[in-house]
Amino acid sequence: MVTSLVEGLKKYQRYVEGALQKYFPLADPYTRQVRKAMEYSLFAGGKRIRPILCLMACKAVGGYMIDALPAACALEYVHTYSLIHDDLPALDNDDYRRGHLSCHKKFGEATAILAGDALLTEAFSLLSRKTVMKKIPPATRLQLIHELARAAGVQGMIAGQEADLEAEKKKISLDGLQYIHNHKTGALIAASLVCGGLLGKGTTREIGSLRKFGEKIGLAFQIKDDLLNVEGKAKVMGKGTGTDEKMAKATYPILMGLDQSRTLGKTLLDEANQAIRIFGKKALPLVQIGTYILFREK
Amino acid sequence: MVTSLVEGLKKYQRYVEGALQKYFPLADPYTRQVRKAMEYSLFAGGKRIRPILCLMACKAVGGYMIDALPAACALEYVHTYSLIHDDLPALDNDDYRRGHLSCHKKFGEATAILAGDALLTEAFSLLSRKTVMKKIPPATRLQLIHELARAAGVQGMIAGQEADLEAEKKKISLDGLQYIHNHKTGALIAASLVCGGLLGKGTTREIGSLRKFGEKIGLAFQIKDDLLNVEGKAKVMGKGTGTDEKMAKATYPILMGLDQSRTLGKTLLDEANQAIRIFGKKALPLVQIGTYILFREK
Repeated sequence: MVTSLVEGLKKYQRYVEGALQKYFPLADPYTRQVRKAMEYSLFAGGKRIRPILCLMACKAVGGYMIDALPAACALEYVHTYSLIHDDLPALDNDDYRRGHLSCHKKFGEATAILAGDALLTEAFSLLSRKTVMKKIPPATRLQLIHELARAAGVQGMIAGQEADLEAEKKKISLDGLQYIHNHKTGALIAASLVCGGLLGKGTTREIGSLRKFGEKIGLAFQIKDDLLNVEGKAKVMGKGTGTDEKMAKATYPILMGLDQSRTLGKTLLDEANQAIRIFGKKALPLVQIGTYILFREK
Repeated sequence: MVTSLVEGLKKYQRYVEGALQKYFPLADPYTRQVRKAMEYSLFAGGKRIRPILCLMACKAVGGYMIDALPAACALEYVHTYSLIHDDLPALDNDDYRRGHLSCHKKFGEATAILAGDALLTEAFSLLSRKTVMKKIPPATRLQLIHELARAAGVQGMIAGQEADLEAEKKKISLDGLQYIHNHKTGALIAASLVCGGLLGKGTTREIGSLRKFGEKIGLAFQIKDDLLNVEGKAKVMGKGTGTDEKMAKATYPILMGLDQSRTLGKTLLDEANQAIRIFGKKALPLVQIGTYILFREK
């Protein structure tokens, strides 16, 4: 089942790759290293979950995927920036990412910091560019920008990141862990769906449903990551497994056990699918990617 | 003369301080450290040059300063983020900023990286917030966002920052130095003026004049910084003087000598003032702040 889901995702992935190539900032002789570092991390084989969710959400509300492409790219810029900064020695200190050297290991810390900063900034540059999304009303584009900034900022990803740092120093509750994941992962995934919904001209109710789907699926995504970290084969994951436990990092399997974590993942997936029932048949691609998220092998 | 200019700036500074306080993100129990770090750096006694230039530009084209306040704050967020990240050990490795411990010295590197990221993101969050700048057309707000993102991104500040890093490793020409300063400092200063002009509903020609003024004054600002680094008294500057020379960093005084640097500063100020002659009497506050920039003592 997972294999056919992966196949189904490929056409979306290709679509996203093409757009990422198209919108990537042109070369400038003076910023060779930073651009190389941005490119290295942006094209390092990510699954493109967030852009794909954005495109699918746009379609689910009856919009055209092509209208959502720049926003899909902006979401991936922000995701990539967060990975680059997360991996830094002062934060998670990860030498590898998706089986390759992390950005700072490859380009040095200074360039990695700047490449992250630049990708974050570029997301907002792209969303506000005159030559893209010409058919989208400026007021809607402002909403996209705000959605993305909130999800990435001190009320979203940054809050999750800080809580994660804090959690390394002390014992954490299940509520605390959920807070971390809702902010660190869930916020941007929910924003991906909301942006797609806005670009497809969804109603307030439809966008509410998409947001709920995103929140549920975002948490399921993280639980699956935790599970893969315990069960996964190092080769498939592209990094050492069991690293979380080694660092005594709180995870769902540690806090509630493997079985209960799996059950929680399935419950979240059910709830996510429930939230998008209003889209009828049009929800199918979203249901499929939700299933992929929970049953993927890496 | 400088004293009276400083006095004249104070009312603008107070106006900006009030707005910064007003728009600063509310507390959240989970992000105490990052918010503290953001606040620490944001309220560390900056001169608020960029916000003030934004307000003055708005006024010069006949607009109301109050309309430009959120953008003025966003500009200061971006400036503050750039200082926090610049000071990091991997970049300039500065322990002090404006006579106080730099952000990472006070809060640790992880929190400083996140605080910088959060301030940058918050700038775009503020500019796209529904409850601010309600009178400004959404299309104009998109222009502001794009102007800021371009100035801060890989075609602006980041390009300057990378060229600066590169320059530490090799001998640099006067052209190279100018490239660094135009991007690292000039781009955001020019953007400050352009944003003010847009918010005051300036014509294309007026905004072009403001941009030119900003570019000239931005370079003059940096030359003065270099001069202060050589001439300045450590106590007035709030950091050790002569640090640039110690690190063999290229500066205007090193590349062209003290006298020629001073002359270049004055020429740039003249050219800047020339650019805004079209505003007649309304240009006066801008002329004054330009004079302040070149004759300030810290």
